[in-house]
Amino acid sequence: MYPDEIKKILDSVRDGSLSSEDALIRFKDLPYADLGHTRLDHHRAIRKGYPEVIYGAGKTSGQICDIVTAMLAHDNNILITRVAEDVFADVRDLAADARFHETAGIITVKRRDIPVPPTSIAVVTAGTSDMPVAEEAAVTAEFLGNRVDRIFDVGVAGIHRIFDHLDIIRNARVVIVIAGMEGALASVVGGLVDKPIIAVPTSVGYGAAFSGLSALLGMLTSCASGISVVNIDNGFGAAYSASLINKL
Amino acid sequence: MYPDEIKKILDSVRDGSLSSEDALIRFKDLPYADLGHTRLDHHRAIRKGYPEVIYGAGKTSGQICDIVTAMLAHDNNILITRVAEDVFADVRDLAADARFHETAGIITVKRRDIPVPPTSIAVVTAGTSDMPVAEEAAVTAEFLGNRVDRIFDVGVAGIHRIFDHLDIIRNARVVIVIAGMEGALASVVGGLVDKPIIAVPTSVGYGAAFSGLSALLGMLTSCASGISVVNIDNGFGAAYSASLINKL
Amino acid sequence: MYPDEIKKILDSVRDGSLSSEDALIRFKDLPYADLGHTRLDHHRAIRKGYPEVIYGAGKTSGQICDIVTAMLAHDNNILITRVAEDVFADVRDLAADARFHETAGIITVKRRDIPVPPTSIAVVTAGTSDMPVAEEAAVTAEFLGNRVDRIFDVGVAGIHRIFDHLDIIRNARVVIVIAGMEGALASVVGGLVDKPIIAVPTSVGYGAAFSGLSALLGMLTSCASGISVVNIDNGFGAAYSASLINKL
Amino acid sequence: MYPDEIKKILDSVRDGSLSSEDALIRFKDLPYADLGHTRLDHHRAIRKGYPEVIYGAGKTSGQICDIVTAMLAHDNNILITRVAEDVFADVRDLAADARFHETAGIITVKRRDIPVPPTSIAVVTAGTSDMPVAEEAAVTAEFLGNRVDRIFDVGVAGIHRIFDHLDIIRNARVVIVIAGMEGALASVVGGLVDKPIIAVPTSVGYGAAFSGLSALLGMLTSCASGISVVNIDNGFGAAYSASLINKL
Amino acid sequence: MYPDEIKKILDSVRDGSLSSEDALIRFKDLPYADLGHTRLDHHRAIRKGYPEVIYGAGKTSGQICDIVTAMLAHDNNILITRVAEDVFADVRDLAADARFHETAGIITVKRRDIPVPPTSIAVVTAGTSDMPVAEEAAVTAEFLGNRVDRIFDVGVAGIHRIFDHLDIIRNARVVIVIAGMEGALASVVGGLVDKPIIAVPTSVGYGAAFSGLSALLGMLTSCASGISVVNIDNGFGAAYSASLINKL
Amino acid sequence: MYPDEIKKILDSVRDGSLSSEDALIRFKDLPYADLGHTRLDHHRAIRKGYPEVIYGAGKTSGQICDIVTAMLAHDNNILITRVAEDVFADVRDLAADARFHETAGIITVKRRDIPVPPTSIAVVTAGTSDMPVAEEAAVTAEFLGNRVDRIFDVGVAGIHRIFDHLDIIRNARVVIVIAGMEGALASVVGGLVDKPIIAVPTSVGYGAAFSGLSALLGMLTSCASGISVVNIDNGFGAAYSASLINKL
Amino acid sequence: MYPDEIKKILDSVRDGSLSSEDALIRFKDLPYADLGHTRLDHHRAIRKGYPEVIYGAGKTSGQICDIVTAMLAHDNNILITRVAEDVFADVRDLAADARFHETAGIITVKRRDIPVPPTSIAVVTAGTSDMPVAEEAAVTAEFLGNRVDRIFDVGVAGIHRIFDHLDIIRNARVVIVIAGMEGALASVVGGLVDKPIIAVPTSVGYGAAFSGLSALLGMLTSCASGISVVNIDNGFGAAYSASLINKL
Amino acid sequence: MYPDEIKKILDSVRDGSLSSEDALIRFKDLPYADLGHTRLDHHRAIRKGYPEVIYGAGKTSGQICDIVTAMLAHDNNILITRVAEDVFADVRDLAADARFHETAGIITVKRRDIPVPPTSIAVVTAGTSDMPVAEEAAVTAEFLGNRVDRIFDVGVAGIHRIFDHLDIIRNARVVIVIAGMEGALASVVGGLVDKPIIAVPTSVGYGAAFSGLSALLGMLTSCASGISVVNIDNGFGAAYSASLINKL
Repeated sequence: MYPDEIKKILDSVRDGSLSSEDALIRFKDLPYADLGHTRLDHHRAIRKGYPEVIYGAGKTSGQICDIVTAMLAHDNNILITRVAEDVFADVRDLAADARFHETAGIITVKRRDIPVPPTSIAVVTAGTSDMPVAEEAAVTAEFLGNRVDRIFDVGVAGIHRIFDHLDIIRNARVVIVIAGMEGALASVVGGLVDKPIIAVPTSVGYGAAFSGLSALLGMLTSCASGISVVNIDNGFGAAYSASLINKL
Repeated sequence: MYPDEIKKILDSVRDGSLSSEDALIRFKDLPYADLGHTRLDHHRAIRKGYPEVIYGAGKTSGQICDIVTAMLAHDNNILITRVAEDVFADVRDLAADARFHETAGIITVKRRDIPVPPTSIAVVTAGTSDMPVAEEAAVTAEFLGNRVDRIFDVGVAGIHRIFDHLDIIRNARVVIVIAGMEGALASVVGGLVDKPIIAVPTSVGYGAAFSGLSALLGMLTSCASGISVVNIDNGFGAAYSASLINKL
Repeated sequence: MYPDEIKKILDSVRDGSLSSEDALIRFKDLPYADLGHTRLDHHRAIRKGYPEVIYGAGKTSGQICDIVTAMLAHDNNILITRVAEDVFADVRDLAADARFHETAGIITVKRRDIPVPPTSIAVVTAGTSDMPVAEEAAVTAEFLGNRVDRIFDVGVAGIHRIFDHLDIIRNARVVIVIAGMEGALASVVGGLVDKPIIAVPTSVGYGAAFSGLSALLGMLTSCASGISVVNIDNGFGAAYSASLINKL
Repeated sequence: MYPDEIKKILDSVRDGSLSSEDALIRFKDLPYADLGHTRLDHHRAIRKGYPEVIYGAGKTSGQICDIVTAMLAHDNNILITRVAEDVFADVRDLAADARFHETAGIITVKRRDIPVPPTSIAVVTAGTSDMPVAEEAAVTAEFLGNRVDRIFDVGVAGIHRIFDHLDIIRNARVVIVIAGMEGALASVVGGLVDKPIIAVPTSVGYGAAFSGLSALLGMLTSCASGISVVNIDNGFGAAYSASLINKL
Repeated sequence: MYPDEIKKILDSVRDGSLSSEDALIRFKDLPYADLGHTRLDHHRAIRKGYPEVIYGAGKTSGQICDIVTAMLAHDNNILITRVAEDVFADVRDLAADARFHETAGIITVKRRDIPVPPTSIAVVTAGTSDMPVAEEAAVTAEFLGNRVDRIFDVGVAGIHRIFDHLDIIRNARVVIVIAGMEGALASVVGGLVDKPIIAVPTSVGYGAAFSGLSALLGMLTSCASGISVVNIDNGFGAAYSASLINKL
Repeated sequence: MYPDEIKKILDSVRDGSLSSEDALIRFKDLPYADLGHTRLDHHRAIRKGYPEVIYGAGKTSGQICDIVTAMLAHDNNILITRVAEDVFADVRDLAADARFHETAGIITVKRRDIPVPPTSIAVVTAGTSDMPVAEEAAVTAEFLGNRVDRIFDVGVAGIHRIFDHLDIIRNARVVIVIAGMEGALASVVGGLVDKPIIAVPTSVGYGAAFSGLSALLGMLTSCASGISVVNIDNGFGAAYSASLINKL
Repeated sequence: MYPDEIKKILDSVRDGSLSSEDALIRFKDLPYADLGHTRLDHHRAIRKGYPEVIYGAGKTSGQICDIVTAMLAHDNNILITRVAEDVFADVRDLAADARFHETAGIITVKRRDIPVPPTSIAVVTAGTSDMPVAEEAAVTAEFLGNRVDRIFDVGVAGIHRIFDHLDIIRNARVVIVIAGMEGALASVVGGLVDKPIIAVPTSVGYGAAFSGLSALLGMLTSCASGISVVNIDNGFGAAYSASLINKL
Repeated sequence: MYPDEIKKILDSVRDGSLSSEDALIRFKDLPYADLGHTRLDHHRAIRKGYPEVIYGAGKTSGQICDIVTAMLAHDNNILITRVAEDVFADVRDLAADARFHETAGIITVKRRDIPVPPTSIAVVTAGTSDMPVAEEAAVTAEFLGNRVDRIFDVGVAGIHRIFDHLDIIRNARVVIVIAGMEGALASVVGGLVDKPIIAVPTSVGYGAAFSGLSALLGMLTSCASGISVVNIDNGFGAAYSASLINKL
């Protein structure tokens, strides 16, 4: 717990609205509930105005449901990534308003409204196989409270397809470029657009694509400026960064 | 040359302010002068409101001076990265107002004013050895028209140093985090700040640091959200992305 | 068999308590029984005051049971790592007092008491997904005769969680830090604690985490001092080293 | 020595124009002279209609001159790659008509005319720093008897530069694309041109460019069809392949 | 869409055979139909005289069938790579004349005749296990309108097998060499044949073969000239390049 | 086909025992039968006094049986590696005397006797998990006509186990050392034995063992002399080399 | 600054010995002096009872001297690693009692006595070339206040050399094992000694040693228990960890 | 020190030719002299009938001379690898009969005769640049007491050159094959020769040769049998293994 939060609590102590004893208890108990296997940081969600996020991969449906139950008590929005449909069945039993985004592999539970700025995030992909990552990015960005423009399947091999959508891409405030194989789409978009670009290498490809390494290295060494890169297949991370930028 | 630029020229043709012949000539000659070894894209500089940039590494002083001479004719700002002092001696003969930023290894020539927004970019580094990359980032960001807060040598091994500067870091609109070795500073700052973070792995370290690979992988797989990454030692690229964001 | 052991036997020969013929037989037969596929080193277990250890991965239930049967004849404690529940069913038929630690994937058979020092080993993890490795470490450390403090899910993204548990961590004699992805938790704990730290990178993560390589490199190149590292996911090895230190 | 060559000699034996003894001698002595450190395959040069090629890197000026002396005796054309100017001084003493191509690092000695087809090879590069590799390719292709169109510095970051030269590129019979960093130029040209493309990754770049690995992987996994790849910086190899194709 | 295509349409506008409104519509609608998940570039197929190609790996049978349905409307030839027999069952429902090439894992639908040049492409493989890649190459090359000579299982370990087929290999206009493990076959064929060689490393092998990396590096660094390389297992890409060359 | 074989046939032609026409036919037809997917090199088997070898991994039972059928016609010994029991069922239908070596994953068919030299090959392994590779080596060596001494499970962690078997190991003419993880056994044996050592790294281990890479690098860089290395898990190759040496 | 330090200052505020204003100032100014390029953490040195440490590699002599000057004001002990003799000349001008340890590349300045426990740290090396790393470890350990036993050049290739020194090694409280190439010495010592072992891979070796990677992987995957590993060539880090353990 | 050596000494004790006290002293003092930085194992040299070997790389001339001085006292043969001519000047001062083998970078001092078997070792190389490694192998093999046949510069690109020398290669008892780049020569020789082959990858090449990695992987995964591999550029190691085999 860092200084500025301490100060807020102490100010309440000083102005008499909080006793020292209660302050100490709030220091200890407030920031998270203890589930044994995952500590929930409710503070953070509220502080950021963002949903609670569960990274579903490698967690059992039971573990996810435990976390969701604890989260629901705080009426926060919830975003669960990298889950299959069977987890959704269990989560819906806990929250009838849960929604499953199949291609994205995401479950969302919306309990609070988030203000949505008028500017948009463009999500641009090279090929059909990049769609799960693209939808992870798009659904996340929308759930974080952003307008999203999807421009899919405009890979470099048919470069005129990018030019056809250039107006929409240039109109966005931030651009997420998603591509596997050699990831050249990031460089091409970077050369055409004067907006911050978040590039997402995908594990699409075979052989020397080395599960996304080729696209990752290509995006990191792009000759175009204004590109920064997130982990392979990390649609969520790209959307999170893009949302921070779009909401500045 | 892409559709919307063609349209602008053609509109001038249509409304009679430009003859077809002149239009054709402008198509061919306008966008850049031909130096044989490097084509200059003057359009781009003007279009972006950004300086011309020369990546100095691997170019001879002669090649750099040829490019600078051509650029100077357009009264653009010029930024030359990764150069040693001897190149500066030659460039100063061409432009008496050229300035050498020694730690950054950057030469700047300022011919035009750029509007500077009130918000700032924080440049945070882990250790003393990261300073050349940090200065490349800071000098670039300033030259692109941004206020820069330098918070140097606050590595994770003495974590209270970060807390001491948390106010300044949180005050910035974008944060550039620069670290070598394991690059953990990016994760720690990412956990404390709700602003977009551009992480720069540096080649500082030895052995399993593998010339920056360790920091690069660490930053890409950070458990904190809101972090995107540029190439190893790429202070310029981080500043360029951060400037795009800061000026939105 | 090395010099000092030879001397002990020879001393018995010299003082007449052992005939030369018996000495030769003990040289040949004593150190281990021959099962064909695995030679058991009973000496070692007794010598070290440690249980016999079977690394279960890649062994059939039949092979494991053969080894256990031979071990049981010596009334040693037995620790079997990386096994699933079905192996446990077979082992329980041989030893009714066998116990299965599910999350750790460990079977233990306790036949001898081991002295437990008053100091403790802290096992600190970054996230929920690191729990199997953490439990492998914790269960092993306890079975080797150590008190263990579990501090789970205190990853760097919410750094105040570490500060909340700093007292317990600083109280331990040795600290095992377990983290996947970028493994930054090791550096942060290393900067806060003046105790020897054994860091365990885990294969948790995806993409550029490269099955634990990212965390491994990060921990090896940590800017904090006092950290040494074991193999990816090697909870057992960390506990073994920590136990050696805790019992000094 | 393979069957069809044996047959030619044996046919001469059979029709009486060559005695068996002389045939045996020709089998042994004809194909190459023995210099101790490098056996010269004169046959091959004549057979291929191509110059003798010396890969200069890692050879002393003395070794190169020994080889050149032996070659000159056969009045073949000679191409020496990857040499510095000081080697040229020595070679010119042996052959006054030797010529040094500085940027390419190539010495040529022309003693025979080679027929030049009317079609051309386009050599396209991304940036100024790729020029040594590009010139190695261009000079080699010209010396092998091809017309060469140089289109330099048309990298993806300013994609309109490629469009400006599309006519020349499409006019060529084979296209050599040379790029470092992420090597995206190969994909872009591959999407625009229906000709066989030989891509040459260069070691230009730093950090995650990993001395050309990034460009190599990117070119191998290009989403565009019709691209095949040679070794990093292998301008000679690209020109050799392109020449074989151009002369079909 | 690039300049020369714009000109053709505009010429029609200028000579009155096309109205401006229709021109605009053709700009927007002609180049491809929008299926939501994959945009089809019909222009390209017609322009190249080549079939539409679907890379089947990672696509559902449903996605493939949607694309095929759209393609069939244009009476183009269709080539679907990397599919299993169950996809074929679905595609045959759409096109009764579809054909499944089992070893190659390819479905073809032939609706247009393609001119076949008299020269041939030789497909040479090292071992039996390389056959799926070899058939992907051979079937693709034939479907693109080429004669193909298959010379299979002539690996370097029994080098006389290559000599037995040297006449056929030398007779081809282009040679595709396919090999896994160390990929030495490419070097051997390269030393014997004066034709352009497209080398395909395969993922055949184990251990230090690293899923094709060993063969890939070997082919890229071959001591023989005239060899260029495509991605691991990329039989399709090799055939596409070879076909471009064979049809020059 | 190489010179000395040509000479033998030609000598028969010269002394009249073979007509030229028959010679030509033997050139073409003799060396192998054509099965379409695998050419059999009967010559080689006879020439080497070795069995025909089929590498079973990645071949269907049908393909293996086709090859076996062709081989059986020549009454050669047959060795099939890397097969599961179901392939054995099919092969036994073709050859009732076929034998399955389960741990080795090898099928053998013995039709000819091979002379066995009095000296032996020692097969030394580090742990139980290395046994499949060890048995592949041992069974192969025996089938190639060698005596084999198996010394299993004498890993470095209990170094006295090696000393117990030093006599047998030193008695062998060649030593095959098989170890996974860090592969240190090769160095230790190499320091104790003055015989040629063939080291086989195995894929046993996890994490930083990287599927055998750790052991492979360790064996290649061993500080002990007299060690040469084969591919990861390549028990067959080690036995083949050892047999060549043992039979010198 | 973490909670327990805050409490100490606040306690002084509460008992009146410190005013709130001064407390705030101490929060800001106390923990370190600001040199611009390196912030010194004097607190840490005192807190740990350890010297200030400067990692000299990549720092200029001027930078090092600035830091030393600041440190000397606090009369702490100072340890500077990875420096050459010319830096020593400059440092000696600042501190006449500075001492240069040539093989270790270390400068020490001793101003305070540190208690030395009776137990020792054994530093064991494989070969002569590992001596610089070994001396870095030994000098560091001694300067941190430990007795050190040096057992050098006892590599695995002559394994009896280890047995000759087994008594000394077993007598130590912690063992540092330093080896390059395949690093097998760590496994051998680990199998013979029941003490915690810190293994240091060195960059000694060539080819497949890959600058220490081979030894690093070997030590991480050692079949012996009780071994933990630090970065390649990190003699300092090993000594620091060993000292923490030795002083428990 | 291992059992059989203990027995020899003890036998002398038992038959009275050696007192117990002297036996103990010989246990301690006999096996090596202590130079501080390198312990010499004289026993080993005598035991193996081999020269003392000094790996010169990374040792100062002074260190080498210290070792040589100690060795000369025992009248053993001495082999120093990887040294430059300046070391030779110093060594010649110690031993006037020392000889420098320039290309090999080897110094030899011959004091004892070694029996030379009538069979030979063939050293076969691909290219001129492999000569230093080849000479390291050849000089070492000769000094160890073997006849050596040098067959240099017979790379795969001109495969008839191998056939020209096949008789000599097949005549050898062991074959050392030395090649850089893709290392295909090992596979080709392996397919032609029924003798044990020691393959040496060299660091010759650039780009994707990755300093010998390409050749190393290629040789390890060779499709030919009977090949085992030593470290990159390890001519000494290959000769040592080959000599062990040749002398069996």
